[in-house]
Amino acid sequence: MQTRIMPPAEEAYHFPLLIKQLLLSNQRYERENGIVYRDGQRFSYREFNERVCRLANMLGELGVKAGDTVAVMDWDSHRYLECFFAVPMIGAVLHTVNIRLSAEQMVYTMNHAEDKVVLVHEDFLPLAEGFSNELTTVDNWILLSEGDTAPATRLPAAGEYEALLRAADSHYDFPDFDENSIATTFYTSGTTGNPKGVFFSHRQLVLHTLNMISALTTINGKPLLSNDTVYMPVTPMFHVHAWGIPYAATMLGAQQIYPGRYEPDRLVRTIREEGVTFSHCVPTIMQMLLHSEEAKKTDFSKWNLMIGGSALPEGLARTAADLGIEIFSGYGMSETCPLMSTTRLDRNVRTLDSEQQIAYRKKAGVPTNLVDIQIWGPDGKPLPHDGVATGEVVTRGPWMTQSYLNEPEKGNELWQGGWLHTGDVAAIHPDGYVEIRDRIKDVIKTGGEWLSSLELESLISSHPDVDSVAVVGVPDERWDERPHALVIARNDELTADILKLHLLQYVKSGHINKWAIPEQIDFVDDIPKTSVGKIDKKRIRAQLA
Amino acid sequence: MQTRIMPPAEEAYHFPLLIKQLLLSNQRYERENGIVYRDGQRFSYREFNERVCRLANMLGELGVKAGDTVAVMDWDSHRYLECFFAVPMIGAVLHTVNIRLSAEQMVYTMNHAEDKVVLVHEDFLPLAEGFSNELTTVDNWILLSEGDTAPATRLPAAGEYEALLRAADSHYDFPDFDENSIATTFYTSGTTGNPKGVFFSHRQLVLHTLNMISALTTINGKPLLSNDTVYMPVTPMFHVHAWGIPYAATMLGAQQIYPGRYEPDRLVRTIREEGVTFSHCVPTIMQMLLHSEEAKKTDFSKWNLMIGGSALPEGLARTAADLGIEIFSGYGMSETCPLMSTTRLDRNVRTLDSEQQIAYRKKAGVPTNLVDIQIWGPDGKPLPHDGVATGEVVTRGPWMTQSYLNEPEKGNELWQGGWLHTGDVAAIHPDGYVEIRDRIKDVIKTGGEWLSSLELESLISSHPDVDSVAVVGVPDERWDERPHALVIARNDELTADILKLHLLQYVKSGHINKWAIPEQIDFVDDIPKTSVGKIDKKRIRAQLA
Repeated sequence: MQTRIMPPAEEAYHFPLLIKQLLLSNQRYERENGIVYRDGQRFSYREFNERVCRLANMLGELGVKAGDTVAVMDWDSHRYLECFFAVPMIGAVLHTVNIRLSAEQMVYTMNHAEDKVVLVHEDFLPLAEGFSNELTTVDNWILLSEGDTAPATRLPAAGEYEALLRAADSHYDFPDFDENSIATTFYTSGTTGNPKGVFFSHRQLVLHTLNMISALTTINGKPLLSNDTVYMPVTPMFHVHAWGIPYAATMLGAQQIYPGRYEPDRLVRTIREEGVTFSHCVPTIMQMLLHSEEAKKTDFSKWNLMIGGSALPEGLARTAADLGIEIFSGYGMSETCPLMSTTRLDRNVRTLDSEQQIAYRKKAGVPTNLVDIQIWGPDGKPLPHDGVATGEVVTRGPWMTQSYLNEPEKGNELWQGGWLHTGDVAAIHPDGYVEIRDRIKDVIKTGGEWLSSLELESLISSHPDVDSVAVVGVPDERWDERPHALVIARNDELTADILKLHLLQYVKSGHINKWAIPEQIDFVDDIPKTSVGKIDKKRIRAQLA
Repeated sequence: MQTRIMPPAEEAYHFPLLIKQLLLSNQRYERENGIVYRDGQRFSYREFNERVCRLANMLGELGVKAGDTVAVMDWDSHRYLECFFAVPMIGAVLHTVNIRLSAEQMVYTMNHAEDKVVLVHEDFLPLAEGFSNELTTVDNWILLSEGDTAPATRLPAAGEYEALLRAADSHYDFPDFDENSIATTFYTSGTTGNPKGVFFSHRQLVLHTLNMISALTTINGKPLLSNDTVYMPVTPMFHVHAWGIPYAATMLGAQQIYPGRYEPDRLVRTIREEGVTFSHCVPTIMQMLLHSEEAKKTDFSKWNLMIGGSALPEGLARTAADLGIEIFSGYGMSETCPLMSTTRLDRNVRTLDSEQQIAYRKKAGVPTNLVDIQIWGPDGKPLPHDGVATGEVVTRGPWMTQSYLNEPEKGNELWQGGWLHTGDVAAIHPDGYVEIRDRIKDVIKTGGEWLSSLELESLISSHPDVDSVAVVGVPDERWDERPHALVIARNDELTADILKLHLLQYVKSGHINKWAIPEQIDFVDDIPKTSVGKIDKKRIRAQLA
């Protein structure tokens, strides 16, 4: 089709979307707020802007050019935030190294991303010294230290960060360039094979930031994210840019607290002493914070908390409600930058009582602006949003990773039919709420339909005599797969027939279809678990085969 | 410089920014809200989406193709909103005809924009019938009627809007295309010459919408624009898309009221009966609303009001405060889509009392996200943001018109040095607030500096014996220009020397420089005015020459 196209982009007044624009408002006027590191190191936004300029100059002096990759190995810090801006703003690519990977995997990612300069915190020096001779592209190190003196190292380091910053020029005229330039990269580790690098462009990060702001400006009819906010991430900055919220908080000129290494008691003390009003984390971390010693003397009633990474457990949602914490869910993954959906608490939900609201708060939420989410059946066709049909979550939006770094063929698995495939299985309710039911690899494909192993486990475990349960799919000639349950019973009275009858009531109430009832229910003494305590379905499937 | 560029845009998963995406969230789930036209015609968002599809099919059946222009002559209506979406979503260009232009100018703009189909409200039929034979490109008309029957006309009309909609298919699969495709155009009339067409692309309107949402989500620390909002524009939809807010309100799924023709009593009754919480208008219209009969029995305390078009007068700001109206300013112009800046009421401002806040509410506000604003002196150099220096407001941002339609050479006047020149003269305060002081054509250029005629008038008129005053620049060999004042005195005692002494106190207090005091102060009986009652500086300059 022949639309009327605007004048060409070469014109002087073309305006590419670039990360430097996220700093505009802070450069324009005085802020009351600033950046705080750990126990009270404070920087105004004016100082922060100046440090970003100095860092850009420092990197240039070390020979970093546009297109080069700069890696960071640090805890959450003001320095990391400076890298979030300065590195992409000179046209280079920021590699946020996942410091929880094995040394071997870390080396793999750093060579694969072709890191040229590495900023490394002193805590990781022993590690880096151990593998530095395996790095094939790194030619310089910058040392990040907590004290006044540079840590001793045998790495060929250019120097200590603060000293290098002081020596660098405080002015930098950041250039315009193509908004599709890659700004950041980081690696996701699957269960098999090498980690894969996702990457995001300036355009994608700017659009994601605008969207994050519109998604999080209010929650439950009250202001959430603005320049009134005191923000502290409790999701590491190496993990999808701490969900991208530092970019939004900086653009808005919020007060930002970067806590360094995560120590529960210190985090909770910081929430109390700095008056933190907004954080985000995974459920496990939240649990740790609320069970810390400091939690006992802390009023959490001004704290708003976004939960992601895995579903918000009901018990935790209740604890949060009791403490006055405004808790809600965000849904996304590394490949989606990450934000796809968040809890909306619309008027009709806000009229519900605290207990009824939990059902909404723990769902994956409603797609944010510009994000399209569908659920597709095994035949690749979209399913209705009736809260019943379940299919794979597929998505489109302006900030999804286009592929995997240097491995475009792996992107072809991710993108099928023009949609990004998340590997999650969900139902979508008529009110737009996405409810994750399973991972696609754990779903049982039977008779051309998908059956959630998680849902079946939940229904079986609702019987009072069941201690625990695991359900996996086993190959079946006629039905492709059939569910097979392993059950640890609380007593000897429980039989397979009793459980089948128990499940039949859910068939009658319309929760599941009749074919969802497993023919095979085995009573066992033990269910195989992974090293982190999750049910090891791979091993169960292997045992049953 | 050589950055790393993302994979090419032709990939299946490329995601152009298109107006159709603004409808995504409303297509995804049930809304409690909808669209209301005049006295209670109501449409759910589901109906609205279906009507947009039907309109797209209807236009296709009338032969409208991508790249064609479709014109609308209507009051503010649900139909207009449907055109805001359907026309650009099929790749065509929407021409929002300015129905306040003279018939001659209207004909000029419709021929210049090459309108192919015109949707015309029955109120404008006599007008359209009068000039239709002068239109060179229009080949079809669609009639918009308030009643059940199509109005009689001798125009070659395809039919009445509702009947055509009913006959059209309710499904349309809107295509993807280049985000730089032109979506809308409309004309601005200068004081001389023909009106000029500005135009905006899909990308620009989507970005402007995201920005509008982030700028207006809260005001004064309270939620403003969300799906809780009941929105009614009181700025015509033909004028810069009613400042672009209908796009934002639709994306958010707000309740929207389109009032048809502006009649003060009906507008105020609608505010009361529909519980309108957010509107925007020029000061004159606000004045009319507050002085209507209906205003006496209306509680305005839930109403939030953005003022633009010209500065918010202090008196009106006080009236608003007394009525409990949250009033604030937005600043922009047709060429800027329009939003450049809005009032921010940050924490420090919110601690001020109502009277002190007025100084902030009446300024042009602080640049919104992604918009850069500078003030440039006569030498084209940026001036400091110290609240004192005044220069021409120049701007950059992702949604500025790139040029004038079919007249790129006129765009070269607008864009100089890579910045859009607004023709406004302002100071910028250290807290970021832009304060408009004058129009550049009324500024006096003296000794390489700019002197605001408006400011000088304000200082002279502060003398109790001055009834009114006009100041213009007159040519001067040595200083380029010098100020020349015409004064209507309240009595015979006032002399030029008294006024110069009066001005000298402002020199001493640092308000103005000594060279700002006019040598020439003439006492007159009358000051030339334009037809709309503004001081006619062009005529005064001609008389003095």
